[in-house]
Amino acid sequence: MNAEIIAVGSEMLGVSRLDTNSLYLTAELNKLGVEVVAKAVIGDDRDRLADAVRAAMSRAEILILSGGLGPTEDDVTREAVAQALDRKLVYSAEVAGWLEQRFAAARRKMAENNKRQAYVIEGADLLPNDRGTAPGQWVEESGSVAMLLPGPPHELKAMFERQCLPRIARVVPKQVIRTLFWRVAGMGESDLDHLIAPVYKKYENPVTTILAAAGDIQIHLRARCKTEAEGDALLAEVAGPMELLLGDRLYSHNGDPLEAVVGELLRKNHATVSVAESATGGMLGERLTSVAGSSEYFAGGFITYNDTMKASLLAVPQELLDEHGAVSREVAEAMAIGARRRTASTYALSVTGVAGPTGGSEKTPVGTMYVGFADAAGTYVAHRQFLGDRQRIRSFVAQMAMDVLRRRILGKL
Amino acid sequence: MNAEIIAVGSEMLGVSRLDTNSLYLTAELNKLGVEVVAKAVIGDDRDRLADAVRAAMSRAEILILSGGLGPTEDDVTREAVAQALDRKLVYSAEVAGWLEQRFAAARRKMAENNKRQAYVIEGADLLPNDRGTAPGQWVEESGSVAMLLPGPPHELKAMFERQCLPRIARVVPKQVIRTLFWRVAGMGESDLDHLIAPVYKKYENPVTTILAAAGDIQIHLRARCKTEAEGDALLAEVAGPMELLLGDRLYSHNGDPLEAVVGELLRKNHATVSVAESATGGMLGERLTSVAGSSEYFAGGFITYNDTMKASLLAVPQELLDEHGAVSREVAEAMAIGARRRTASTYALSVTGVAGPTGGSEKTPVGTMYVGFADAAGTYVAHRQFLGDRQRIRSFVAQMAMDVLRRRILGKL
Repeated sequence: MNAEIIAVGSEMLGVSRLDTNSLYLTAELNKLGVEVVAKAVIGDDRDRLADAVRAAMSRAEILILSGGLGPTEDDVTREAVAQALDRKLVYSAEVAGWLEQRFAAARRKMAENNKRQAYVIEGADLLPNDRGTAPGQWVEESGSVAMLLPGPPHELKAMFERQCLPRIARVVPKQVIRTLFWRVAGMGESDLDHLIAPVYKKYENPVTTILAAAGDIQIHLRARCKTEAEGDALLAEVAGPMELLLGDRLYSHNGDPLEAVVGELLRKNHATVSVAESATGGMLGERLTSVAGSSEYFAGGFITYNDTMKASLLAVPQELLDEHGAVSREVAEAMAIGARRRTASTYALSVTGVAGPTGGSEKTPVGTMYVGFADAAGTYVAHRQFLGDRQRIRSFVAQMAMDVLRRRILGKL
Repeated sequence: MNAEIIAVGSEMLGVSRLDTNSLYLTAELNKLGVEVVAKAVIGDDRDRLADAVRAAMSRAEILILSGGLGPTEDDVTREAVAQALDRKLVYSAEVAGWLEQRFAAARRKMAENNKRQAYVIEGADLLPNDRGTAPGQWVEESGSVAMLLPGPPHELKAMFERQCLPRIARVVPKQVIRTLFWRVAGMGESDLDHLIAPVYKKYENPVTTILAAAGDIQIHLRARCKTEAEGDALLAEVAGPMELLLGDRLYSHNGDPLEAVVGELLRKNHATVSVAESATGGMLGERLTSVAGSSEYFAGGFITYNDTMKASLLAVPQELLDEHGAVSREVAEAMAIGARRRTASTYALSVTGVAGPTGGSEKTPVGTMYVGFADAAGTYVAHRQFLGDRQRIRSFVAQMAMDVLRRRILGKL
């Protein structure tokens, strides 16, 4: 069974935006054994979109449209799909009532143009939206189905997961897809591929995909089989040797990000962590606290962006700052010690460095980063030189710092 | 003049890859006044690709294809375009000779399948590739042109810049594109549209696009004209009345994000800011320090995720915590006062709230957020109830806090 995906919106055709909804949708469809064979982005042009919808529904069993369901006249998805299928749009008093209730609950007045969102394609099923005002629609025609979903990713995901996936699963031919989703820290994409390719290249099923982002690498394995047992056996055959090769660089067996894995380790050990951030300016805290329930183990943090704050908030000795500079092994260590002492946390992490683009020197060029760690047993400092722009350097060192914490808790550093 | 872009390759349809070549191509085309009206990604399927090529060339004057020019049987772009135009592929001894030379120069033996790359669509012009083995092709048909470019970005860019741009510039009607890129805080997308639609709806040129994300709204205006002066006059005609309607909610006239705008205000006023973050856990610090040069005005920050830290790091009185709870107007205020005092900053911002999904109560349900502000003149606390998941609530309140700071600096709060 094949699917096509169309993202709607002229803003998606600019120089800065990419349609990332399609990545999520592809992952979910693949899990059901549905292959995505084409994707498109179409501007807010009703005729052009209607043509694209007609062509896609003549080729694929599933068409997913994202965006263009808003209240403004730019939002043409409803009209374009109706036109492609030669159906009418019908005003739904039920949807209008639901929209009015939603606005009333938020104590806001509903704008007149929101009524556009109450038009439903003749014969379509409504897909409720509990995260926004745009209801989705599910419309079938000659053995194909078009799903009209809202553009904002959190609305699209919730609607697709709750409303669409169960319906699709009912019509997709029964096959079992078993997957593994691993994450690896501390090595580059090509080194990793070089290491594990000799194993996975031998197999066409499962399919192995490697995906890299800012110091983090994901490995996806996907086996298609008749039974779960057969799928799991196939996965194990490939996963076993790869696991041996990866060792403790493999930090997640279920796709959880590093902050969740570290959080779980802290929780299990009844331990807490604090952070002292210079170059990352709050990224470590933001990541650690992005996990629900992190208040259980996140003790607190300091964003000390200048020498005065490093000295006054973290008690970094002024002599260290004068002698070695703020970007140094010694200051990273003192920052971690200071954060740990001030918060009485089990562990403390620190980052100091030059994120750039300016501020580099011969001794400490842009990309120089120190990660400090302190616990009751002592301290540890790691140093690396990163390449790239400010954002990339900060992301990489944040990932590295989280991995230092993980390895220390596991006694591997 | 309109363009469409097709990226070819099944690997571009996976869960991890996005076609980024199209962003570069769009930027270059826009500079010439050429509009990109649709983009697609098509797998390695000759018939499907031929259909897409035929449809695109019937609608747009320019079609750019990237990828699928390699030596393997998966590489179907040459065949698909020939099929779409009903032309033959002709073996070019000249290209074959050039390929052999290239391999010889690299002291590598040319594989037999590289000869596939020596086939040229009847009537096409060859586009030399000095960074890879896949030559490009330029083929015209009934007033449209298709450009076949290699997939690797560095090959595509070099070929497009040197071979295609000069040719396109010769045929594009001379026109000038003038743009405005605004950002607005503190209102929802439909309220904003309701407010300014009566102005921009009157104009087809410039085109106005509205785009929303996490409490931030972008407004793009784009005018196509014969001269810069004419374009600017047109923009001013629409922008003037919209500016009056938006008032101080319009925070950026050049697309800069809120953290950059706030940073510039701080710098101009020789002022500094500190943050005290509970629910946002470091997001405010991360955003403020994401701007290069922010060390000039970012004084420091505290991530105080629990009561003990609020009391010990920010000197929030224990009575306040006991009496009102950590999620309260009083504690938000005390956090800001504490951060300002500890860092001696001009301004201080604080956030306390319930990001969820758990931890809510009847008095403070999930999504309850308080933003505190302190300066020499006194304090200010804003309260809002947000909807959505943990990540969304945190993003929204971070944006709100940054806007509180901006408005206070401007004397609007």
